[in-house]
This record gives sequence, C-alpha cells and structure tokens, in this order.
Amino acid sequence: MSSFHPIPEGFGEQFMEKTPSLDRVAILGLGLMGASLGMALRAKKLARSVVGYDVMPGVARRARARGAIDAVVTTPTEAVEGALLVVLAAPIMAMRDLLAAIAHHLDAHVVVTDLGSTKAQVVSWAEELLPHPDQFVGAHPMVGSERSGVEAAEASLYDGGVWCLTPTPRTRPESLKVVYDLTVYGLGASLVLVPPDQHDAAVAVVSHLPLLAATALTLAASNDPQWGIAQMLAAGGFRDTTRVASGDPRMARDICLTNSQPLLEALDAYLASLQRLRDAVAARDPDIGEQFAEAQRRRDAWLASRGGA
Amino acid sequence: MSSFHPIPEGFGEQFMEKTPSLDRVAILGLGLMGASLGMALRAKKLARSVVGYDVMPGVARRARARGAIDAVVTTPTEAVEGALLVVLAAPIMAMRDLLAAIAHHLDAHVVVTDLGSTKAQVVSWAEELLPHPDQFVGAHPMVGSERSGVEAAEASLYDGGVWCLTPTPRTRPESLKVVYDLTVYGLGASLVLVPPDQHDAAVAVVSHLPLLAATALTLAASNDPQWGIAQMLAAGGFRDTTRVASGDPRMARDICLTNSQPLLEALDAYLASLQRLRDAVAARDPDIGEQFAEAQRRRDAWLASRGGA
Repeated sequence: MSSFHPIPEGFGEQFMEKTPSLDRVAILGLGLMGASLGMALRAKKLARSVVGYDVMPGVARRARARGAIDAVVTTPTEAVEGALLVVLAAPIMAMRDLLAAIAHHLDAHVVVTDLGSTKAQVVSWAEELLPHPDQFVGAHPMVGSERSGVEAAEASLYDGGVWCLTPTPRTRPESLKVVYDLTVYGLGASLVLVPPDQHDAAVAVVSHLPLLAATALTLAASNDPQWGIAQMLAAGGFRDTTRVASGDPRMARDICLTNSQPLLEALDAYLASLQRLRDAVAARDPDIGEQFAEAQRRRDAWLASRGGA
Repeated sequence: MSSFHPIPEGFGEQFMEKTPSLDRVAILGLGLMGASLGMALRAKKLARSVVGYDVMPGVARRARARGAIDAVVTTPTEAVEGALLVVLAAPIMAMRDLLAAIAHHLDAHVVVTDLGSTKAQVVSWAEELLPHPDQFVGAHPMVGSERSGVEAAEASLYDGGVWCLTPTPRTRPESLKVVYDLTVYGLGASLVLVPPDQHDAAVAVVSHLPLLAATALTLAASNDPQWGIAQMLAAGGFRDTTRVASGDPRMARDICLTNSQPLLEALDAYLASLQRLRDAVAARDPDIGEQFAEAQRRRDAWLASRGGA
C-alpha cells in the first residue's frame, strides 16, 4: 500500500480484522462497475447480502440474473435500508441526485462510498448533502474495460486492482476502515490515498487524457479521405491506441464535466508535446529519434515500476 | 483478398500453384520483422534454405541460434548470391545502401521485396538503383509488436496478417506472383494492393499517427508534476493507449523521415480533432457526449468490419 495522504491518528491500529464481513451492502447503479463489484462481493462472501438498485429496472433484473446481487429494489431509499455500506456506482452526474435521495435515510454509522472516475465533485456533493459527512469515503478503483453495462460485468474485474481513496479531514477513521478492509483484505487491492483534488489532477493525465487522445484519434482517422483503405490496414497499433474510445460515452462526458480544469491542463501539455513532434516531422529532423527514444525509456520504466505487464 | 490497384493483365490466371517452394531466400536485416519471417519460412517449409545477413554480426548469430535462418553470411552480396527471393528487412533509412550494394549482384529473375513501414521512398530507391526495376515488389506486412529485435521474433508474428503490396506499372507480374504466392498461400495472408503513395497516406493515419499520439502522450504524462502519483494510478487505459511508444525508436524516426507530408496532414487533422474536444471541455458543454458516442460507434464499426477483436 502506498499512501500520499496523512492517515488519521490511530488509524493503522484498527486494521486487525482480516476477514471483513459486511451484513448488507447496497449498490446503487448496476453497470459494469457496480455489477462487477456485486459479483466479487458475492463470490468472495464479503457480504451477507447485496441489494441492488438501478434507475433502469431491467438492468437490475439482469444484474440479479447474472448473480451480481441477491435482491432487486426499486428505489434508492429502499436499497439503503438496513445497509451497513452503500456504494454509489452510477454515472457521476447522477450521483448528486442519489445522494440527495438517500441522505436522510442513513444512520450515522452507515458508510457511503462511490466508484466514480472523478473525486472532487463527488466528495463535495457528499459533504454538502449527507447529514453525517464523516460517513463518506470517496473511492476510485483503477480498473475498467472499454466494454460497459451489466452484460460486461465480471467478478474478476477488481482482482489485483489499485484503488484510490480520497478521504478528507472530515472523514471518520471508522468509515475509512470499512472501505480499507473491504478493498485491501476483501478484494486484495493496493491502495493509494490522496486528497480529491490531487486524485483528479493525476487521473486527468493518465486516464482522462488518454480517453480524449483515443477519441480524437478515432474521429480524425475515420474522417480521413484515406479511411476506406486505411481501415483495412489498421492493425494492433490502431486497435490498442484507440481502445478506450469504445468506452461508455456517458462516463466520458461526465468526466469532462466534472474534471474540466485538470483535463484542460493535461490537454494543453499534450498539444504542446504533439506540436514538438510535428515541428520535427516538418523539419525532417533526424533528431526526432531522441523523442521516440525518450518516450520508450519512460514507458518501459513505468512498466518496470509496476512489475511488467 | 481486397485489391485497390489495377492488377496487371493476366495476373490472376497465374495463381494456380498453391504450394510455393522457394529454393533460397535471403533476408537482409534480422530484427523483429526479418527474424520472424525467417522463422515462419522455416517452420512452414516455404524455402529450402534461408540465408541471413545483419549489419551486426552478433544479431545474425543470434538469429541463427533462434532458428530464424539456416546460414549466416557477412555481406549483403554474399546473402543474395543464388537467392531467388531477397527480402529487405532493415530499417528504412538503411535500405538505400542495401539496394545499392546488391543491385549488380542480382540476376534478372530474382525477386526483391521489403518489409518497410513506408513505401514511396523505398520503391523509388529500388526503381532508381536496381538494374531490373521490374523485379521489385514493395511490401508492408501490417503486423508488429512494441517489442523489437531478434529476441522478440516469433514464427507466429505473420499469422493471419494483412500484407500491403505496392506494385507500380513497372513491376513485372512474375515478380508480384512470387510475393503473392509466398504471402497468400505460404503465410495465409490477406492482401491489399495499393500504389505506394496511397499506402503511405493510409498508414500515416492508422499507424504512424497513433505512434506519434502515443509518444506525445507518454512524454506529456511523464513530464507532468503529478506523475509521481499518476504513474501509480495509471492502469490499462494508459498502458494500451501508449503501447506503441515502446516500439523501436529508429523505426519511428525513419517513418517520420520518409513519410513526412502524409504524416503532417494526419497530425493536423488530429490536432483539429483534439482542439474540438478541448473547446467542449473548456465550455463544459454536455454535448461533448456526442463526440464520444460518435467515436464509439465508428471504432465499434471498424472492429465489426474486421470480425471483432
């Protein structure tokens, strides 16, 4: 576990229990992330029951049919009734309404977390709307797929994943402990703890910028007059460089709407980096090889730092 | 097989022989592409002997130790002696010298091809330097890996791959037939036949642009002040979007030097596409979702057109 945030006093001593067992977990939103979490909780017996809600009743029914949840409920308030842990797994822009809906149906001891790709906005909504803001722990599991929806869910999605938790000075250590136990002991996760703003700036660079880069590449290539032939020649390089452009457009939109400033900074650095390559191409400068060599070294160093793969 | 180039008169009727068997093949350049081709030729018994040359003698010895070639020779002229087919598998910028070195050691019936990522420059060198320009067939197998060098070679690299062949009006049908038989019947390839310029414009979009996009992304991300934390949060999206930035820097350099005009046009379209996304992010425009949805549709249509994967 790597930590980049001051952990609350006495927090570590509480991590004695290695077998988290939650009585009832409510998952609100049953797309790829929520349904996969339900599958993992049930497969690993980390909760006595998993209750699921989705704004589309058919999705909740399919989640149940796929074994992601034990029971379907039809309202957010019904979902959180009696739950010890509430997981918001809806699109980011839907979370404010969900928080408002459940806020006054949560006992003080209930822990609320989320799986959203941006954290500052979600944490700020939670601390504004929940009567007990100390019960909220922002979370972002760094896993995913370009596939989306309950049909793409799998129990293994979270295996070996890194989770980013973004507690604030208002977060109660006991709330953090519940999410810590679940992710570290329950799901075998590695944790990175950072403040919400720092999380957002970091993922703007390594997650949201790649999404925009892949999207722009897909659009530019498919608009090209040569696309008719080019699409037949496109191979593994094109496939991988554009992979994340096949992801859920709504998630991408919500990321842009809730992380615009860090994303603009990342985009501008990217545009400058592209411009530098463009200048070298235009000048037919053989030293462009240095830029490629530097990128190769840095990417390989990054791969090595995470043990290959 | 898809063809986008007028095939020489009477060309089709010649394709009767389904078991190509070449007496002696010379491979000049034993990196990933050349050594993998040697392995495939030997594994599939497509040649009676494969002779290999590399400017670095140690590389040629390792290629032989890995089973990529039957015999090592130490000069290009020695390699082509008695060969029916000569394959130039060196970096693009080294090909001119190779062509000059072998030009006057080739009988008229010998067929010369190459595996370079750009075609107009290589074809023009071949037609300038070879005493029998009709013996040259430009080729670009659309396969590869971000790994490079003889150690990364594998016999399966070409399995199921698309090959782009770029004959010109000067290419002798008999020369094309040798390469056709080898790739289609021997390696099970799908072929796309296009003129060299059109090849270069197409791969600028779907191969060279992704390379620059991935390189700039790697450099921008790793230069970011947040990189310390960001690199721990970077996951599958970053890994795949940047994968090709781990490729051979010399190959990337040579691509830029020999395909600069099409690459500049592709880059400019990409920059415009990014700028359009940037404008929407800056305006916090919810309609940005349309751009993501459009990219998703187009990429998924591309995937579907090639039968998934």
